[in-house]
Amino acid sequence: MPHIELPDGLFGIRSAMAFRPETAKPLNELVEVLLRGPSSLTPGERELIATYVSYLNDCYYCQTIHGAIAAASLNDDEELVKRVKADFQHADISDKLKALLLIASKVQKGGKHVTAEDVEQARSLGATDVEIHDTVLIAAAFCMYNRYVDGLATVQPHDDEMYRARGKRVAREGYVTVSTEYLAAATAGR
Amino acid sequence: MPHIELPDGLFGIRSAMAFRPETAKPLNELVEVLLRGPSSLTPGERELIATYVSYLNDCYYCQTIHGAIAAASLNDDEELVKRVKADFQHADISDKLKALLLIASKVQKGGKHVTAEDVEQARSLGATDVEIHDTVLIAAAFCMYNRYVDGLATVQPHDDEMYRARGKRVAREGYVTVSTEYLAAATAGR
Repeated sequence: MPHIELPDGLFGIRSAMAFRPETAKPLNELVEVLLRGPSSLTPGERELIATYVSYLNDCYYCQTIHGAIAAASLNDDEELVKRVKADFQHADISDKLKALLLIASKVQKGGKHVTAEDVEQARSLGATDVEIHDTVLIAAAFCMYNRYVDGLATVQPHDDEMYRARGKRVAREGYVTVSTEYLAAATAGR
Repeated sequence: MPHIELPDGLFGIRSAMAFRPETAKPLNELVEVLLRGPSSLTPGERELIATYVSYLNDCYYCQTIHGAIAAASLNDDEELVKRVKADFQHADISDKLKALLLIASKVQKGGKHVTAEDVEQARSLGATDVEIHDTVLIAAAFCMYNRYVDGLATVQPHDDEMYRARGKRVAREGYVTVSTEYLAAATAGR
């Protein structure tokens, strides 16, 4: 049961966002620009970073929905998403993305865990300063989203088909567009 | 030395935000609505939560600037801010705020650490659902800001007077107003 009275029929972060649309707006804009805005990292690569950090933080809702969005952005390759979570060093992804995932895993532990060597390694494999910046901020942001979702004890159904369908929709339409709909419905229901 | 090439003359999160104004916008809007938007918690109370979480995450820049903003919002009571960081249970703050700080400290460890008993305790001392929600999100958000600031190894001068002056200004004018200025200067310098 959630720690506070959240709107019925919504799960995970959506229920928290519908409870407080004032904070939902910048939260949705942040994830949109970070994961889907113009970038030399593909949406699939960025969703893999978000999924991996959410996995490290043990947030069921976030790792499942972002895993589904990642798969939808990567030719429906759900096996690749599973492999990245289990052992990204041996997944079929670029060496640059492996170096960025390592930086993200350090950020998950705490900002000071990132070393100059971690960054130099990513740079030697082709990562730009913007890519390194965005990796750090994506990892940091999911340390927020994960804590928000679990800290309120939101309802997080175990229903693969639901996450798969929502993942495809977010991959197609984006966070802000999809959120506008459920936030409007929640506000109308007040 | 920062891990990436950040603009000269700016410190902590400001240097990271000036590097990437696209993500700075929602980051500033989020902190503005969370810490200064309409709320039954005062800006001083909310800044104390932000300061305490930043202290737990050992982020020098964030705990110092938000400590300064907290003090500026609380009749310049710098001793109170120090006391909250060192031992909030014996600080001269309300029992409700102590219960909310305890929830924030659990969120800092991870969302699942917050228990129904923690929330019940806060509620019995007068905390509303919105106050509990905002406490969880403030704590979660500072787990992001702290990791962002330290994960890029931003420059964080030890200069009490600088933080004190900036703290007073943010307390008076707000985050978005102050950020507009240094972000415009950074963008013009590109």
